[in-house]
Amino acid sequence: MPETSAILGVYLSETMDLDAVYGAALRAGGDDVILRHPSEIEDPTAVRFAICWLPGAEAFAPYPNLDLAMSIGAGVDALLAHPGLRPDVAIARVRDPHQADLMAGFAAHEVLHYERGFGQMMDNARERRWQPLPMRAPEAARVAVLGHGTMGRAVVQALRALGFTLRVACRSLPEDPVDGVTYLSGVGSILNAANGVDYLINVLPLTAATENVLNAALFARMSPGARLIQIGRGEHLVEADLTAALDAGRLAHATLDVFRTEPLPVGHPFWQDSRLRITPHIASDSLPEIVAAQVIESTRALRCGAPLAFGVDRAQGY
Amino acid sequence: MPETSAILGVYLSETMDLDAVYGAALRAGGDDVILRHPSEIEDPTAVRFAICWLPGAEAFAPYPNLDLAMSIGAGVDALLAHPGLRPDVAIARVRDPHQADLMAGFAAHEVLHYERGFGQMMDNARERRWQPLPMRAPEAARVAVLGHGTMGRAVVQALRALGFTLRVACRSLPEDPVDGVTYLSGVGSILNAANGVDYLINVLPLTAATENVLNAALFARMSPGARLIQIGRGEHLVEADLTAALDAGRLAHATLDVFRTEPLPVGHPFWQDSRLRITPHIASDSLPEIVAAQVIESTRALRCGAPLAFGVDRAQGY
Repeated sequence: MPETSAILGVYLSETMDLDAVYGAALRAGGDDVILRHPSEIEDPTAVRFAICWLPGAEAFAPYPNLDLAMSIGAGVDALLAHPGLRPDVAIARVRDPHQADLMAGFAAHEVLHYERGFGQMMDNARERRWQPLPMRAPEAARVAVLGHGTMGRAVVQALRALGFTLRVACRSLPEDPVDGVTYLSGVGSILNAANGVDYLINVLPLTAATENVLNAALFARMSPGARLIQIGRGEHLVEADLTAALDAGRLAHATLDVFRTEPLPVGHPFWQDSRLRITPHIASDSLPEIVAAQVIESTRALRCGAPLAFGVDRAQGY
Repeated sequence: MPETSAILGVYLSETMDLDAVYGAALRAGGDDVILRHPSEIEDPTAVRFAICWLPGAEAFAPYPNLDLAMSIGAGVDALLAHPGLRPDVAIARVRDPHQADLMAGFAAHEVLHYERGFGQMMDNARERRWQPLPMRAPEAARVAVLGHGTMGRAVVQALRALGFTLRVACRSLPEDPVDGVTYLSGVGSILNAANGVDYLINVLPLTAATENVLNAALFARMSPGARLIQIGRGEHLVEADLTAALDAGRLAHATLDVFRTEPLPVGHPFWQDSRLRITPHIASDSLPEIVAAQVIESTRALRCGAPLAFGVDRAQGY
């Protein structure tokens, strides 16, 4: 396509060089979509869309004709909450099926790590100690999954394939339930999903309704000695409630991949708590070639006035 | 049922107190099946069956009327190779679906551990270092599974649910193939399954044809820096070839759950090799209540002359 019909976009991030990660894949996708860093934009009024990851407070101000803001990930909470993003700007996300598989792999690894005692086994091996640990049928281990979007569904499929007993808190009951999985929706579904479980995996989106949902009341529902696997957003977790639940033996361990402040500050007490497994927001990631393909698809839809395949409902919050 | 119609069996193991593990579940299953330790048997000619785990060389000698020897696990190589077991004694195994789920969980954990760099991440966390590691789409990771019995099938299902690309070496092509999995059978299928893979999971039964199958020629087919997950039998592995492949960088790591001598001797060099993850033959286990139910089912079939649900074909070796 000739340059005259090209659509111009801008990279907006305070923490990432988005062109370094996605530029090559975007350029390979076609010359009708052009992306620039803000410093390379000659005419800000020509910018029609933005690709975003934690954009700064004033990031959107120079672009009066913006029609679309895209998140490079599945989570759009940072865009929805951004005070500088006009309400009439459409928001879209990336939906990368690999991202859901990666998330499922992370969750499965952590459940299996705790369930089978790999930490203890590796300690034993260092001491040349041959000591089989007791095991139980996977179905005897009860797992709650909070959230049933693309991520939650992948987590459920993977853990079901491994034989675990699953209970899922979802916004609405699925039309294609997985055999042997219990689905809960409506008022109280999150608390009820947690009743008596050995593992709780959080993959909820961050909304006003889900902020601070991982709290003392929820932990009190779980089986004593249970484990939390927190791969949603840092704002879901009431940090003091987690520490209290660990101190009380209500929870035995937690795996935390997301935090209220990222990177987790060097002075944060979580780092030195041996009951926690800390990972640096890597439960999943979207792949550059997928991001590029969906950015290009969305911008072409924008130019034609076609509906956005991965548009976000601002009222729902995801 | 009255005692007069009961059938008498004997526990035979050099390494385990089988009554301590299975006795309660067997007694709960019915009073028509009676199990005794050898020292408790008054009339050895009355013993019709044996429940076995690594029976001693002379273990079968006192029982001339034995009709059935049952393994408490899926592997029957120790019974098939036993010089004291008469050829006309039927051999049966236990098939516990949980055992396959447990095996699948172990294999999935190890693939994910390596693929996602959990060892490095935990080292980083100890140093309070926030350092995301690169990741790839799960489908970009190629996994070979050697063996496609109950265990192999469960491993394939679980890893497929996690998005990995799978190639399976099987004795015969399955009638119910899993979508997206490549099945190989016939001459050369094991070597060909290993071509260019990043992970190789061994769940083969131990037979004359599969002994020493994990050797230099197989490792040479794999992708440089690949990982071996050995959850078959110790006799599958040529130990010197593994060490040489690790030294040459052909393999980066191996997880070993089974060994030629178990427990792995304290002086064995594997213990102190940091490229190895050593676990004490716990990739899976059969559960007492399942073992008891299948022992009772098999002994009742024996008494009626009915076919054994989990009989072993001695010619095939499994």
